[in-house]
Amino acid sequence: MAKEIERKFLIKGEAWRALAEGTMYRQGYLNSAKERTVRVRTVGDKAFLTIKGITVGATRAEYEYEIPFADCNALLDDLAEKPLIEKKRYKIKQGEFTWEIDEFFGDNQGLIVAEIELTSEDQKFDKPDWIGDEVTGDPRYFNSNLIKHPFTRW
Amino acid sequence: MAKEIERKFLIKGEAWRALAEGTMYRQGYLNSAKERTVRVRTVGDKAFLTIKGITVGATRAEYEYEIPFADCNALLDDLAEKPLIEKKRYKIKQGEFTWEIDEFFGDNQGLIVAEIELTSEDQKFDKPDWIGDEVTGDPRYFNSNLIKHPFTRW
Repeated sequence: MAKEIERKFLIKGEAWRALAEGTMYRQGYLNSAKERTVRVRTVGDKAFLTIKGITVGATRAEYEYEIPFADCNALLDDLAEKPLIEKKRYKIKQGEFTWEIDEFFGDNQGLIVAEIELTSEDQKFDKPDWIGDEVTGDPRYFNSNLIKHPFTRW
Repeated sequence: MAKEIERKFLIKGEAWRALAEGTMYRQGYLNSAKERTVRVRTVGDKAFLTIKGITVGATRAEYEYEIPFADCNALLDDLAEKPLIEKKRYKIKQGEFTWEIDEFFGDNQGLIVAEIELTSEDQKFDKPDWIGDEVTGDPRYFNSNLIKHPFTRW
């Protein structure tokens, strides 16, 4: 079990694309209720099941377990809520921090967001030029909500 | 992934108690929707997360993963739907089959059911004297429903 503190931002321009290769993610929810989110996803050639509790401030309980890749694909195809989320994730190291940029496809095509993980809610960090407006508290950008109300229908 | 075929019966009398020691189970659901049931439970000193799909006939897709015992207790206490199910399970071998008897506590105190796992839906088996009426198809006895409508309130 670990606590995660994340802040989320929109992206400006294309300069970030030169800084990282991306990895494909394919994911779906076995429960998208915020009290007990259960997510399954493939990350490149690995697969994980992740359970998250309710968010208190910017802090959320998280439990993650690696599962067999073939199981995960069957769970995504047969059991998970639809539509699935498909995205390419780019990790860009800037000083002591790593920005994670998600470029969405499918029903969320056109959406690109950047996340940074912090060790406390008030920790200071530098914003690269390609970081835009903060959307941390905006529920439209929660992964679970991008299934129910995808970006192309906003 | 494995398919399971189970038949469930009520119990008659107390003769079965002399045939096995029991093991305590404590379990709850992260999703009790029948399309994608997600269960966490402790079995003695071990812990498991189990995902099941929708039942077709007496057959159901099942995926089970062992997880850390401390994680499971935190998931049960903090995240799982309430009330939890607490029961003692007795395994009684009879010829080639093993009967699993569940004696429930808490809100389901007084309920005792026996299950047998088969390799095909029409496989033959002997019924011990202490096996009563079959309740395989009765949704009241599904573990997920024993949370929403516990035995003591029937």
